[in-house]
Amino acid sequence: MNKNSSNIMALAPNTSNKRETVCIFGTGDFGRALGHKIIQSGYPVVFGSRNTQPSSLIPKDAEVLSHAEAAQKAAIIIIAIQRQHYNFLTPLAEILHGKVLVDVSNNLKINQYPESNAEYLAQLVPGAKVVKAFNTVSAWALQSGTLDASRQVFVCGDDMGAKQMVMDIVRALGLTPLDQGSLLAAQEIENYPLQLFPMWKFPILLSLGLTAFFFFYCLTRDIIYPYVYENKDFSFFIVISIPNRICPVLALILLALVYLPGVLAAIIQLYRGTKYHRFPDWLDKWMLCRKQLGLVALAFASLHVLYTLVIPIRSFVRWRQSSQIVSQALNNKTEPLNTTNAWLSDSYLALGILGFFLFVLLGITSLPSVSNNVNWREFRFVQSKLGYLTLILCTAHTLVYGGNRFLRPSSYRWYLPNAYMLSLIVPCIVLVVKFVLIFPCLDKPLTRIRQGWERNPQFSE
Amino acid sequence: MNKNSSNIMALAPNTSNKRETVCIFGTGDFGRALGHKIIQSGYPVVFGSRNTQPSSLIPKDAEVLSHAEAAQKAAIIIIAIQRQHYNFLTPLAEILHGKVLVDVSNNLKINQYPESNAEYLAQLVPGAKVVKAFNTVSAWALQSGTLDASRQVFVCGDDMGAKQMVMDIVRALGLTPLDQGSLLAAQEIENYPLQLFPMWKFPILLSLGLTAFFFFYCLTRDIIYPYVYENKDFSFFIVISIPNRICPVLALILLALVYLPGVLAAIIQLYRGTKYHRFPDWLDKWMLCRKQLGLVALAFASLHVLYTLVIPIRSFVRWRQSSQIVSQALNNKTEPLNTTNAWLSDSYLALGILGFFLFVLLGITSLPSVSNNVNWREFRFVQSKLGYLTLILCTAHTLVYGGNRFLRPSSYRWYLPNAYMLSLIVPCIVLVVKFVLIFPCLDKPLTRIRQGWERNPQFSE
Amino acid sequence: MNKNSSNIMALAPNTSNKRETVCIFGTGDFGRALGHKIIQSGYPVVFGSRNTQPSSLIPKDAEVLSHAEAAQKAAIIIIAIQRQHYNFLTPLAEILHGKVLVDVSNNLKINQYPESNAEYLAQLVPGAKVVKAFNTVSAWALQSGTLDASRQVFVCGDDMGAKQMVMDIVRALGLTPLDQGSLLAAQEIENYPLQLFPMWKFPILLSLGLTAFFFFYCLTRDIIYPYVYENKDFSFFIVISIPNRICPVLALILLALVYLPGVLAAIIQLYRGTKYHRFPDWLDKWMLCRKQLGLVALAFASLHVLYTLVIPIRSFVRWRQSSQIVSQALNNKTEPLNTTNAWLSDSYLALGILGFFLFVLLGITSLPSVSNNVNWREFRFVQSKLGYLTLILCTAHTLVYGGNRFLRPSSYRWYLPNAYMLSLIVPCIVLVVKFVLIFPCLDKPLTRIRQGWERNPQFSE
Repeated sequence: MNKNSSNIMALAPNTSNKRETVCIFGTGDFGRALGHKIIQSGYPVVFGSRNTQPSSLIPKDAEVLSHAEAAQKAAIIIIAIQRQHYNFLTPLAEILHGKVLVDVSNNLKINQYPESNAEYLAQLVPGAKVVKAFNTVSAWALQSGTLDASRQVFVCGDDMGAKQMVMDIVRALGLTPLDQGSLLAAQEIENYPLQLFPMWKFPILLSLGLTAFFFFYCLTRDIIYPYVYENKDFSFFIVISIPNRICPVLALILLALVYLPGVLAAIIQLYRGTKYHRFPDWLDKWMLCRKQLGLVALAFASLHVLYTLVIPIRSFVRWRQSSQIVSQALNNKTEPLNTTNAWLSDSYLALGILGFFLFVLLGITSLPSVSNNVNWREFRFVQSKLGYLTLILCTAHTLVYGGNRFLRPSSYRWYLPNAYMLSLIVPCIVLVVKFVLIFPCLDKPLTRIRQGWERNPQFSE
Repeated sequence: MNKNSSNIMALAPNTSNKRETVCIFGTGDFGRALGHKIIQSGYPVVFGSRNTQPSSLIPKDAEVLSHAEAAQKAAIIIIAIQRQHYNFLTPLAEILHGKVLVDVSNNLKINQYPESNAEYLAQLVPGAKVVKAFNTVSAWALQSGTLDASRQVFVCGDDMGAKQMVMDIVRALGLTPLDQGSLLAAQEIENYPLQLFPMWKFPILLSLGLTAFFFFYCLTRDIIYPYVYENKDFSFFIVISIPNRICPVLALILLALVYLPGVLAAIIQLYRGTKYHRFPDWLDKWMLCRKQLGLVALAFASLHVLYTLVIPIRSFVRWRQSSQIVSQALNNKTEPLNTTNAWLSDSYLALGILGFFLFVLLGITSLPSVSNNVNWREFRFVQSKLGYLTLILCTAHTLVYGGNRFLRPSSYRWYLPNAYMLSLIVPCIVLVVKFVLIFPCLDKPLTRIRQGWERNPQFSE
Repeated sequence: MNKNSSNIMALAPNTSNKRETVCIFGTGDFGRALGHKIIQSGYPVVFGSRNTQPSSLIPKDAEVLSHAEAAQKAAIIIIAIQRQHYNFLTPLAEILHGKVLVDVSNNLKINQYPESNAEYLAQLVPGAKVVKAFNTVSAWALQSGTLDASRQVFVCGDDMGAKQMVMDIVRALGLTPLDQGSLLAAQEIENYPLQLFPMWKFPILLSLGLTAFFFFYCLTRDIIYPYVYENKDFSFFIVISIPNRICPVLALILLALVYLPGVLAAIIQLYRGTKYHRFPDWLDKWMLCRKQLGLVALAFASLHVLYTLVIPIRSFVRWRQSSQIVSQALNNKTEPLNTTNAWLSDSYLALGILGFFLFVLLGITSLPSVSNNVNWREFRFVQSKLGYLTLILCTAHTLVYGGNRFLRPSSYRWYLPNAYMLSLIVPCIVLVVKFVLIFPCLDKPLTRIRQGWERNPQFSE
């Protein structure tokens, strides 16, 4: 009650400016941290505990009572106790009848129990209004006051009024409540803090697999081959040269894989003549992780840029350059400028720079705070128009880099083509199919299908 | 009602935990998607349609009734129908009296009709409380559940209570309602999703114009001139060398244009002796797109950095370098280190690096989530102090780059100075005027004017 | 009361859609700007002023009355007057009784008065409900309509209902209210707009101090020493070479200082056998500015990258390279490839690239909008696991860079080791201690302590 005291009261008893007492069951780490924070926000707090003797750890301004006494003092009871001990609440069922019980618990594993902790609590105390909240907040963050990570508190519950009361407390604590609907959402909310980048799993596993494949591919072509046939030790290529082949190859393939599902979806819709059939499951999942695929591709592209820019500083490159020049000087010959080479070299560098630049732009617009400030038309313009332009530029960069080497026999050591040639397959397919889909004879029906038209309608309004 | 059922009710009949039925007129794409999402959030939904036979596309938990029947079941009716068909609502006027009608429609063009769709709806059904909402949300986003783009829902309407009810639904859907005021704002809200980066139009057109000008300027000086007089084919300069002249020139000019309107405004205020006259319209518009100008300038600066860093990898540069060294070796001469050159070269590189670094910092602080976390003093410190420091560093970078070339006749081919010399005009003017404005004899009256003082007061409190 | 009546309500005069009149005392800059914006948001506004004659500057739609008359027309009165003039409110105490007074004032200095302006106001008019708000919004931003900086409005007050009314106005203005608790928070809210990056002070001062130290250290070793002993003028090293030694050294030291307090805290907790004793004050403060330390380290690392990438363009480096090659050619000798050198050079570059890449990733995840979208497990994974990996990579980068130079006597001019050797001290200590702490014999008790276990328990639940 450290804050209401300063209130010089008006005539009528105004209850709206007295914050209601909050009861917390459990004086463990999280209960105490939460109690401390709630007191700071102006609510009277009472702890319910088996052990009611005062302790230095419990915030001074809070009372510690038995569970039953504490529960009677408040309309909201926060259950800061582990699920295993919930059954001690059964004898209190009568006192808890009509009260708002806030389940803040977490599990150790995803889907550890058949039902969520909050639903279990609702079963144990059927007369109470159970609300799930605060499980995504860490005791440490509450204590230290630093909330560098998320300020979002997911809230769910079947009783609208109870949920509203809890959300008011969340807001008073300086956190952002997010209403997730009924108590059915509790399972998902309880799983949330146990997740480790679930959307990133597929893109990262895919890129690890591709990295491993291309690493051994390049190892064979660029280190083992010259060692076997020319007895040269290029083992140090493992450090920069080979990564700098793998990175652009992966960036290009992953970027193309961002746009492939859209193209596949268009073909499926054209074939079915409707948009009202669900896509196959794998396609749905693929479409949902396109953003992550694109960002992994951007990471590889960034590494490629860094690896490329350090080329002139590398000891090996400096040695090769100076030995070439020295041999030219010793042989007393000056080479004229090869304009074709100058064109090719400058073109692939310029295409790469522009492609990377657009790629970074795409990455910036995918930042939550930026994408929140664009409307759908702008978002689609950036992600689709600029995205395809990026893909075209990056594919052209690779094609021009290849230049006239595609037909040179030395590019096929042990019948293995250069890695960059392999990387061109997926993007070229995507671009060709997309190009075909732009033709009016395909684009028109597709647009109509996407606006709701059906070739064999089953439904009409 | 799939969610409230699980609620084992307390003693008093608590109506607060029953969500009110929502009616949706129209079973088209958007209506169904919205209905589906609203059901998921715990609201009972009833569709009003001409065709009341069940369809597989309509969410199972929703009833489909005639328009009149459906409207009677709910206090809120979402009109998910195109504006052209609104007149079917006229016969329903009596039933709709006192109801909340939510206009979710969009147009195909900006300002397509003289009045907004929502205002038109309010005229058709004068007894209803019309609220504009949801028009910025895409059906696709609602269906797929991925809300990568904006979660903001603009809401406006003349009736506060009606607006509040709609905003509660928006929040329950996991979206963020933004109250835009009365129904007069509907026109703007309807135009919003049709916009394509309106604030960026001027900066981008300006930079395209300047790019075209400097491209032909450099083409003349660097490719046509040597071709005519020295018969050398430097056409490949188009790819990297010329872009790498245009980019820094544009970055510098655009950055100076960010600070020019502030300087002009100060002069105007000093001349008028008051801050209470509006600036000319062009100056107001210019000041509002300074952030966008700055970000376009940063884009050109980033390209300049990339183009510069690939210089040593370019085939032409390697050829030039090696032929220089070979000719030195053949002529048996070693050049001593020119310390002045080393100083100049290192200085302009260092100035450029520091300028670019500060420029990127400015760009990062303009990210919405970052600028939201700084107070006004900090924002002004970064955007004004650091901004001017960036301008000074970039101008110095260009000046030192010029070095002693300003006076060399070879810099003026066909009487055309180098492009970078032209780029120095605007920043130098800005810096000189700003420097003059810092003098106390001008700074003091300006500060007083900005605090509200007037030389010829027309108003006193 | 403006929300409860929102049901169907038609016939009876619906007051809920009339916004309540807002009164503003003071017709100065801020008062007028705020009034203008509040009128735009649909509220009737009345100004209270000593001078009630109409003025062109006051929004047309607003009345100007005497203070007493204006106050009687509204339930909310915004006091847009400086603190020095507050005493004119004393005679109005009776009229203001029960009204909501909004204090929008700011001071010129932090903690200028013993009590906050809002608390002073509450003392002067004891019958009114004082709410602090709007002091973080600038008049200029309200006038121009551009809110590039923060949209957050901190609100505090002792009366919940009054606070709610003010927060509704804030929302209607398109701003985001943040409830900061009781009027005790007013002091902090009034200090907020006067702060200039308070969290950054220590990291920036520390890095300035270290920069100065290492600058003179390198100056001595790299410029004065060769000048004294070899009479060579390398003064131009000041521009790029020396900054490029200072930057990586500072980046590494500051990055290690981010992880040092965590290691110290673990040792203290292990020693004390409990986590329930407060850390010493300096350690607490240090832990709170770790994010800022890390970002400053990232800034130095970025500069290091830029300085390194321009190396091949530097005039001095080109001269050194060409004179080496020319002398090789003149001496008619070709050097074979030194594979060890190639390995070392490529390795330290690759380690640096990977370290910098992870460092940038860490920086991106510290953006507020990104960190808001990860849960605690993900946040800790990124900041701790990836953070230590970054530290390991950067330390390894420096160690490999040193290579076999550690034992070469020429590295110790005037008994001064190279700067990078000094920079290795802190990171190596952190990594070694962290490595020791991973051993089960220390990790297990530490984990238990952090879960609340105590070696000498003083408290039990």
